[in-house]
Amino acid sequence: MSTDNTAETEASTTETDSSSKCGGATTEETESACGASGSSSSSSASSSGGCGASTDADDEEEVGSTVEDFEADPGSLTTVGLGPGRPEGMTARAKAALAEAEHIVGYRTYVDLLPDEITEAAEDIYSTPMCGEVSRTEEAIDRTLAGNDVAIIGSGDPNVYALSGLALEILESKGGSADAVDFEVVPGVPAAQSCGARLGAPLVNDTVSVSLSDHLTPMAEIESRLEAVAGEGFTIAIYNPWSRKRRENFQRCCEILLEHRDPETPVGIVHGASRDDEETTITDLETLPELGETDIVDMTTTIIVGNDETYVFEDRMVTPRGYETKYDY
Amino acid sequence: MSTDNTAETEASTTETDSSSKCGGATTEETESACGASGSSSSSSASSSGGCGASTDADDEEEVGSTVEDFEADPGSLTTVGLGPGRPEGMTARAKAALAEAEHIVGYRTYVDLLPDEITEAAEDIYSTPMCGEVSRTEEAIDRTLAGNDVAIIGSGDPNVYALSGLALEILESKGGSADAVDFEVVPGVPAAQSCGARLGAPLVNDTVSVSLSDHLTPMAEIESRLEAVAGEGFTIAIYNPWSRKRRENFQRCCEILLEHRDPETPVGIVHGASRDDEETTITDLETLPELGETDIVDMTTTIIVGNDETYVFEDRMVTPRGYETKYDY
Repeated sequence: MSTDNTAETEASTTETDSSSKCGGATTEETESACGASGSSSSSSASSSGGCGASTDADDEEEVGSTVEDFEADPGSLTTVGLGPGRPEGMTARAKAALAEAEHIVGYRTYVDLLPDEITEAAEDIYSTPMCGEVSRTEEAIDRTLAGNDVAIIGSGDPNVYALSGLALEILESKGGSADAVDFEVVPGVPAAQSCGARLGAPLVNDTVSVSLSDHLTPMAEIESRLEAVAGEGFTIAIYNPWSRKRRENFQRCCEILLEHRDPETPVGIVHGASRDDEETTITDLETLPELGETDIVDMTTTIIVGNDETYVFEDRMVTPRGYETKYDY
Repeated sequence: MSTDNTAETEASTTETDSSSKCGGATTEETESACGASGSSSSSSASSSGGCGASTDADDEEEVGSTVEDFEADPGSLTTVGLGPGRPEGMTARAKAALAEAEHIVGYRTYVDLLPDEITEAAEDIYSTPMCGEVSRTEEAIDRTLAGNDVAIIGSGDPNVYALSGLALEILESKGGSADAVDFEVVPGVPAAQSCGARLGAPLVNDTVSVSLSDHLTPMAEIESRLEAVAGEGFTIAIYNPWSRKRRENFQRCCEILLEHRDPETPVGIVHGASRDDEETTITDLETLPELGETDIVDMTTTIIVGNDETYVFEDRMVTPRGYETKYDY
């Protein structure tokens, strides 16, 4: 049986950071204060006390219950990466982990990506709109501590700007044990690699992944990181490149890159991958700033900036690994 | 029918860079001059002229035939990432792409990882030992140009230190067209994410991937990249950390990291993942140098260095995303 326990009326879906870039981004950062998701009516009774039920429209989501409030032996807790979004991008292990889970918890867009056989087999699905990931993750952990086998899902990989860390942090804050819940991370294909695949072979050498969202990281730190890597031979995967509330971050990023890299450096843009409005473009660094206000660069976009050896061959980006320095071909 | 066309006698498998780290690395760089793999007796007749058949034991692998030598309409060319190595880590799309391929080309260790149903369904398998990836990739492209649908396989993701770039480079050098061969990259879970999953949640924020192999990248550039990122808030995934022929690279890397990061910074080490000798350890930066000469750090190892916020919770590495700065839990 599959149910959607979301308290719709509490959901603020205004400006959020990302959804399913390249079908693979798992970032779920909120730009604005989000009224967190409502608690599930079918949740374990023991998860009362504030979990998943913050209704305050500010940045604070209160976490309530601790491990002391639960009498059952805990279940298992697994974070599962769905990869590029569509079922064909999921690993067999991810599918098996979801089939084993009694409860599946996730952002609604990702729940909607699950094959019917999985949602139908689950005892319960707890999904919420974008934002509210702290209360949603706490709900998942309370359900685990109450004795249920729980899977937390996200697109991409559960490590890449995703919820594996938050799950461990909240588990620890409740006095729970990662060993006791048999905590497991099931990796998935990250957005950088999904988008890289669509662009050809842009990420074949050393690579940096940077998020331009300053919701959880100060912009000064983001700028410092970009300054540090822009002059080196890294390709750069940019997550969360643009949103209405922080359009200047994108412009600042472009400025920093242009200070260090050739204006003709190839740049690949993948917008809304695995979505109806999917679009892939290859441009250059000089042109990138003017695309900030266009539809192709938004919160569903991942951008890949080539290094000084990256070139374009028939609408594909190629970053040589270096074989050409040693071999004739 | 499945055949192994390797000219065993030509294979030098002495010191090579990596095999299946975290079951997910696809780097196949050679430290030494490798006698390349022999050409396939069942290969398309048109792929004569040096392809896949270099017997010179030096760094040069001659590439012979061009698109002019082929009369057939080309087949399709797909690079497929197997992910963490075992079939359960493969995506459904990867499995389907291999089922569609007439010829499968890859390093023998990866071919051995394929499910029997795939190898048995393929018309031909062309596998070689470690090294010889230039001639092997050319063999794949010659087979494509001769009209066969070909898949080039590797563990991890085909972009991450892998052969997608080389495939496009060789295709271009032969006068071939990526559009004409319907070139496609099927992404897989990279080693960094596979290993990150085993370690918990170390890669939740901005991350750098660096290979310590100086076979195809000068060590001065690798050092410069490490210097640039060591003082910033990146977690660092280190591929190809150690081999007998370049043990000093690992020590130099540790020195650079220790100049910029706290000696107590958590470091995760995953050795030989998905192999019989798999081992996962969490240590700290101060201890890392002395592990260079131990069995846990070798060419099958991936190392993940935390940032200044990474901590250890019950043998798991946790890199906070930053939620703790905005939320109470």
